[in-house]
Amino acid sequence: LTELQHISIIGSGKVATHLGHALYTQGLRIGQVLSRDHTHAQTLAKTLEAEAVQHWAELDLGSIDLLLIAVNDQSIPEVAQAIQRVLPEREPLVVHTSGTSPLQWLSDRLPRSGIFYPLQSFSPGRSPDFASIPLCIEAGHPADEALLLHLGQRISQRVQVTSAADRRSLHLAAVFVNNFVNYLYHIGAELLAEKDLPFALLWPLIAETAAKIQQQSPQAMQTGPALRGDAATIAQHLAALEDKPEWQDLYRRFSGLIGSFSQGN
Amino acid sequence: LTELQHISIIGSGKVATHLGHALYTQGLRIGQVLSRDHTHAQTLAKTLEAEAVQHWAELDLGSIDLLLIAVNDQSIPEVAQAIQRVLPEREPLVVHTSGTSPLQWLSDRLPRSGIFYPLQSFSPGRSPDFASIPLCIEAGHPADEALLLHLGQRISQRVQVTSAADRRSLHLAAVFVNNFVNYLYHIGAELLAEKDLPFALLWPLIAETAAKIQQQSPQAMQTGPALRGDAATIAQHLAALEDKPEWQDLYRRFSGLIGSFSQGN
Repeated sequence: LTELQHISIIGSGKVATHLGHALYTQGLRIGQVLSRDHTHAQTLAKTLEAEAVQHWAELDLGSIDLLLIAVNDQSIPEVAQAIQRVLPEREPLVVHTSGTSPLQWLSDRLPRSGIFYPLQSFSPGRSPDFASIPLCIEAGHPADEALLLHLGQRISQRVQVTSAADRRSLHLAAVFVNNFVNYLYHIGAELLAEKDLPFALLWPLIAETAAKIQQQSPQAMQTGPALRGDAATIAQHLAALEDKPEWQDLYRRFSGLIGSFSQGN
Repeated sequence: LTELQHISIIGSGKVATHLGHALYTQGLRIGQVLSRDHTHAQTLAKTLEAEAVQHWAELDLGSIDLLLIAVNDQSIPEVAQAIQRVLPEREPLVVHTSGTSPLQWLSDRLPRSGIFYPLQSFSPGRSPDFASIPLCIEAGHPADEALLLHLGQRISQRVQVTSAADRRSLHLAAVFVNNFVNYLYHIGAELLAEKDLPFALLWPLIAETAAKIQQQSPQAMQTGPALRGDAATIAQHLAALEDKPEWQDLYRRFSGLIGSFSQGN
């Protein structure tokens, strides 16, 4: 087995940036960065000591071991098609980084394909500790799986081969605990903004809520008026949400679901 | 102004326990703990060097400065009534610790009343840093308000006089960012449990989601398929939730609300 040492990247967004930095920091060599947004590609390439390229023809696939595709899910098939056209004799392993997209989008066109999915939400200006981020690996061939596992272990302590079905469940769960949770934070911020109260008043509560589920299951940690069956408070809250029918509706649904915990959902 | 130095507590649940410990640790003297659950009261009293009492007649209100009521919201009126019956000439300040209950439930019956509401979710076996917890103060008289502010500052760096309307908004927002968020964590845990995947895989994502809203607003930090208008992923997720109609419904509603961010909700 040759290790995956030389890597190029398609894409210059958040996943490309965070994965690129994590790999670069661990001593991997990043060759080229190709992105529709050439300015972004140039910015990212500079920090990775890589070359930013603008056209598929400029992509030097013969000299790399791994091509990392970090683009919108929808663009993966067309990217695979473009790669297929410029694929050299000594083909590199090509992986995407998506939680939902099938391996097939690559394996239909490319002889060596895989998935390298980091289970984290990346935001500009933040550097989450990559070592703790779960990395989900999948590959068309056992040898490539081993190569990806080995590469993953250089940047994360939680690398695991993950079936397509498991990866989709992880991504779905991630939407609930990240995207939807963030929207609830937004509701909290807006309810306070209406009274000119700073959102920061909720930070300790948000931090504690997120921390305590590492100690006991969320079901064991559930609290609040709905769990207590406190109908008076629920009625008061629903009345306060009278002019926000969609949030009122969420409130009603969550209260019903949490209420059924008592009956052992 | 005499300071509030001698305190007794009605209740022996989570709020009574955490507030009691915070006050005791800061050198306040806890006199008595009265609770329906006498075993709980004894356990709490022991750790506070206080006396556990079982009957209202045993309550020595003449020798304390503050009586802290930390019971279920619904029980506050009857507790106020019981206190009224045993109130001595030199009446202590009596406060409740509820986010939703009005001051009136006390002030209707008691000459000196107030509210001492810590904006945090308390769980057994956890000791959140009390200094960072916002404390919302309200009182019937300015002199008592000053006394409560002063006491609050001994245990928290975020004490503020809060109107009844603001306190209710804070409590409502807290239900969204704590109770409902925790239920979304539960959904995430269950979706993984079905595939025998450990919930711990989501911890880094949960921690990062909770941390990054201290840097930029939740609206600025929103990500995910709904925000991107990624209809294919949304359809795949809804299909995966086919046998969980209530979670599917939540998914649909959140996606609609987050989708409207793009149009600038």
